[in-house]
Amino acid sequence: MLPIIRRYSSQIVYANKSTIFASIQDFERLIGKENVYEKESLRKQYSCDQSAHKPRIPELVISPTSVEQVAACLRICDEKRIPVIPWGTGTGVEGGTICLTPAIIIDLRKMDSITRVHLEDFDCSVQPGVTKDTLNNHLKNSGLWFPVDPGADASLCGMAATGASGTNAVRYGTMKQNVIALQIVLANGQIVETRGRGNRPPKTSAGLNLTELFVGSEGVLGVITETTLRLHARPNSYSIAVCAFESIQQAVDSVVQVRQTSIPIARIELLDEAQIDACNRYSKIDLPIKPHLFLEFHGNTDEEVEKQSRLVGEICSSNNALSFEFSTNPSEQKRLWKARNDAFWAAKALKIDSKALSTDVCVPISKLPEVILETRRDLQENRLLGPIVGHVGDGNFHVIIPCDEKNAEEMQRVEAFCERLAMRALKAGGTCTGEHGIGIGKKKFLVEEVGEPAINVMKSIKLALDPNWILNPGKVL
Amino acid sequence: MLPIIRRYSSQIVYANKSTIFASIQDFERLIGKENVYEKESLRKQYSCDQSAHKPRIPELVISPTSVEQVAACLRICDEKRIPVIPWGTGTGVEGGTICLTPAIIIDLRKMDSITRVHLEDFDCSVQPGVTKDTLNNHLKNSGLWFPVDPGADASLCGMAATGASGTNAVRYGTMKQNVIALQIVLANGQIVETRGRGNRPPKTSAGLNLTELFVGSEGVLGVITETTLRLHARPNSYSIAVCAFESIQQAVDSVVQVRQTSIPIARIELLDEAQIDACNRYSKIDLPIKPHLFLEFHGNTDEEVEKQSRLVGEICSSNNALSFEFSTNPSEQKRLWKARNDAFWAAKALKIDSKALSTDVCVPISKLPEVILETRRDLQENRLLGPIVGHVGDGNFHVIIPCDEKNAEEMQRVEAFCERLAMRALKAGGTCTGEHGIGIGKKKFLVEEVGEPAINVMKSIKLALDPNWILNPGKVL
Repeated sequence: MLPIIRRYSSQIVYANKSTIFASIQDFERLIGKENVYEKESLRKQYSCDQSAHKPRIPELVISPTSVEQVAACLRICDEKRIPVIPWGTGTGVEGGTICLTPAIIIDLRKMDSITRVHLEDFDCSVQPGVTKDTLNNHLKNSGLWFPVDPGADASLCGMAATGASGTNAVRYGTMKQNVIALQIVLANGQIVETRGRGNRPPKTSAGLNLTELFVGSEGVLGVITETTLRLHARPNSYSIAVCAFESIQQAVDSVVQVRQTSIPIARIELLDEAQIDACNRYSKIDLPIKPHLFLEFHGNTDEEVEKQSRLVGEICSSNNALSFEFSTNPSEQKRLWKARNDAFWAAKALKIDSKALSTDVCVPISKLPEVILETRRDLQENRLLGPIVGHVGDGNFHVIIPCDEKNAEEMQRVEAFCERLAMRALKAGGTCTGEHGIGIGKKKFLVEEVGEPAINVMKSIKLALDPNWILNPGKVL
Repeated sequence: MLPIIRRYSSQIVYANKSTIFASIQDFERLIGKENVYEKESLRKQYSCDQSAHKPRIPELVISPTSVEQVAACLRICDEKRIPVIPWGTGTGVEGGTICLTPAIIIDLRKMDSITRVHLEDFDCSVQPGVTKDTLNNHLKNSGLWFPVDPGADASLCGMAATGASGTNAVRYGTMKQNVIALQIVLANGQIVETRGRGNRPPKTSAGLNLTELFVGSEGVLGVITETTLRLHARPNSYSIAVCAFESIQQAVDSVVQVRQTSIPIARIELLDEAQIDACNRYSKIDLPIKPHLFLEFHGNTDEEVEKQSRLVGEICSSNNALSFEFSTNPSEQKRLWKARNDAFWAAKALKIDSKALSTDVCVPISKLPEVILETRRDLQENRLLGPIVGHVGDGNFHVIIPCDEKNAEEMQRVEAFCERLAMRALKAGGTCTGEHGIGIGKKKFLVEEVGEPAINVMKSIKLALDPNWILNPGKVL
């Protein structure tokens, strides 16, 4: 299979700038002048995501208002070999929406309906313009919510495209477990409903799992124009706990033991000493500069969450926790969780005028202590700031590196560090990315991780569904 | 895309019987004479599964002992265009392992290692010869278990291939949520590790979700030769409850309310009046002939499961339950759950010398009462026996129809009923199969369910990975 694919994908001749400019009238005719952005000031907003990857201004931005318009636009792009990149909220961190060559960005935010909500069945369908906060606001008085929370208020279709997860995943799963069905537009303009229009069975074994294939496909297989999501009962009671340890080993041992007891913990986050130090400065708080666990419990009653917290507290004590602060009071919770909420900004603030490069890996839980400790040593040896904050219940952690993009020598050190981190995760049986995706930056690690045969299967599928390779070229594969 | 695929898959000329017989020596050379079965008495054991689908004896059965042998055998089959059907335990119920034309069955049971167990990370890897009971027996003293339970003691790789689930899925998920990685042999003999050899991250967003694509692919995309599974903490306490209702509506209303409270119920099964009647006769018990819920609770302490049961008991009472029997005592539990355990055999015994045809659909929970009631009416109007037993927490239910295969008129009525049932499920926004798969019998419903565009995507992927269409031809697509 390999030689054919190699030949094919390197032989594609894409449209040049003038072909793209020449198609402007076609797009204006299809979706209206007001939905085609030519002005540089507008296009510039689509030149980067929240990563440190090199920005590039797209040649054109189109903003269709219906799935039929998306389909019609893609047909033109496919005919003319114009690269197309789907755009949700631009909150990605691996450069997945940055164009690498002359290209069109298709901004999907004008399709912003919550198409269907079935409260009695715990499901709903949303278009790409709907973000997680918008949906949860809409569900406010319903007793239900959508718990997947990557941090940013991202587009839910974009979260499906990235295979996002975040803090709540340890209890509620990632997007993979919470997407029931997708509406996709293929490169050739074909509209596909992965489970058939309107179907939303709680489970199914009917045919190939297209839904799961398109989740996490980062725009390379099709454009997601609707996603049907699983909702969850909103807990009646919440509690928060914060716990300091002498060592990361003790903190992670506690996490493993908590997981083993099946206590349905909702969030379990690790902040290392460097992150706590950064948070103390940024949030003007005064936590001991030690590794901390930040925990959240969800339940039907206060009694239930108190019981969960007590059990977890006992486990932490048995691992020589230095403290275990706990609260069911909302304002007190806010205070306790503040360090975790501000972690990214605290890390960024460590260096004036810096970009914060956030990279993530995920490893089997038992490997977490050694991987984190080696990573800390690596940072020190290479004179890099890099607080660590992790969704440790899933073995997933981030290193947030404040760095100066204009300092080539420093950026080289950062890049070399990220490479060692990814390889360290793979050596431990993990993955080069738990939730950020491959985008531009991690393509070479993906090859290392899954091996050439799996890459070839991915490329074969890509080629079968997007034979002219117009969808988000240069990403993932 | 469509015309090309149509042309392609109908143009394939498969090997005839003599080509298959002529390749016997090749296989004997590759895997040893003792692993190639020519005798009819041996081959006959591979002619059917547990369904009523028409048996057919395969021309040859090969039984490789390593993944390299599987790869070498597939290369020969691919070159010679010999259809190949992977075989686990033959416990499927949609004819997925029955050959339709001259073909080779590849029995994978001699690859029977539990390759790796990582207790501290809650994961393990197994070869196709390992069944769920074998694995759970191996894990007996570890505090962990693998909870997915389709009823039969099936091969775990086969369960991955079918996308199996069963009674515990409402709490622990189906195979889709419990397979971390797969080792696959493609039609051309290429060995693919979907997540890279030995990798087992708790979550990942690295590259296309090949694992999820191959789960539920029913042998049409590749042969699964190893599966890495998520394990779960074995509960310390179990309790069982049985509850009778006047109507199915009341029973299902209780289920919906239980789901809304997030009580982590482990099993919640519905048996309708006809099934209870059958169980009373078969198991010599004396339950009131009313719809019943059979429930199981898992927890860390007796107190915890008692609390869960009490809450569920209150919900059932508020829906006018006629009774609510509850026990944490193992022998008492066995007695209470007996009707559920014997359900299939009880249904079969309703008719002497009958085959029991078990069909399944899955619908959004809110649609369950009307779909079940219409189905009951349909059975009566068409003079069919058909007890209903369902994993109702997931909206999934089975109709078990004892029928006489030699009675063509009856079989026609059965077939027409199954078609109406599938269409009823689709009309309700459900699926034609929640856990049995498509196999032979449900191909036409799959088209109805997902639509031509999604079928074309599936066929494109099939063609990309198995260009000579040798893997389990005539199934699913």
